Amino acid sequence: MEKLKQRIMSEGLAVGSDRINVDGFINHRIDTSFMDEIGEEFARRFSGVKVDKILTVEASGIAIAVSAARYFGFCPVVFAKKARPNTMTEGVYTAPCMSFTKQTMNEITVARKHLSEGENVLIIDDFLAHGEASKALASIVEMAGGHVAGIGIVISKDFQGGKAALEDLGYRVETLASVLEMDNGRIVFA
Amino acid sequence: MEKLKQRIMSEGLAVGSDRINVDGFINHRIDTSFMDEIGEEFARRFSGVKVDKILTVEASGIAIAVSAARYFGFCPVVFAKKARPNTMTEGVYTAPCMSFTKQTMNEITVARKHLSEGENVLIIDDFLAHGEASKALASIVEMAGGHVAGIGIVISKDFQGGKAALEDLGYRVETLASVLEMDNGRIVFA
Repeated sequence: MEKLKQRIMSEGLAVGSDRINVDGFINHRIDTSFMDEIGEEFARRFSGVKVDKILTVEASGIAIAVSAARYFGFCPVVFAKKARPNTMTEGVYTAPCMSFTKQTMNEITVARKHLSEGENVLIIDDFLAHGEASKALASIVEMAGGHVAGIGIVISKDFQGGKAALEDLGYRVETLASVLEMDNGRIVFA
Repeated sequence: MEKLKQRIMSEGLAVGSDRINVDGFINHRIDTSFMDEIGEEFARRFSGVKVDKILTVEASGIAIAVSAARYFGFCPVVFAKKARPNTMTEGVYTAPCMSFTKQTMNEITVARKHLSEGENVLIIDDFLAHGEASKALASIVEMAGGHVAGIGIVISKDFQGGKAALEDLGYRVETLASVLEMDNGRIVFA
């Protein structure tokens, strides 16, 4: 998505050798009009694919998933939780999810009742690095007997291997901006 | 909002004497079409009010704020963070925020660069109980020299005093469903 690459270049901000800070339009302040365009682009990429539901993970994935849902016939969005709230008293699916940035092992949780057998679930997230979050989300879809319709990512840092790993597992991955390499403010897109 | 009250009565689920679980369409699974209607209703309630930006808090507030933003001319949304991420290296505003449910004192954070002096900021959130989150968000808007254009809440538990407290502070509060009292599955709306 050319406009996304341009925004990353003009405002986005390579931090060190492996982080991209898009707090100005995706992760903290949300450019809602641009988010709508991102949602529409995902629908274009996955046109012809049956999508019954979108699954993402809190918090940054929510705005993207909700914006995209409109273009998939206002399908429901489910967001996995990073901490299980005390209101979640019924059965849940959980999957481990390593955070390389924080060097901690987390767990994401989805209530069983919000996923169904045979459902076609599109996974949406803001970033793809090592692929841990997407793998955890995909495993939850499969635990529920659902089918992963695809994985849609706004920014993939291809050099961290997540995209290749997910493709090796047989998933279709669509990334709106793929970063091949980066180094102190310099970003090379695919 | 009649449809919201009906959904709370039919699916929403009073838990004990003070919690309402709307995980099925707002807090975990999001009914994106209904969320769009909620966003439109906020625009109707605040029609004629100048809104430059919407401020909410992660995670559940994000879907509501993004859905509403479309009806406020695609204004930007900023979501306060409950934990300061390690990518947030610049100046921030923070405000204490008591969680009565968890009986813990938290802190919410917004990067200074995402709020500006003189801005008209609409605060949006899913629930209003004791008013702690809204008060914290309003104090951050004011620290930044902005003006609180109003506070829009999906479900207010009026009996917990938050709405009255915010109105006493001079804020205009619009609640789409106001619960006067509840008790083991029974909910009385205003």
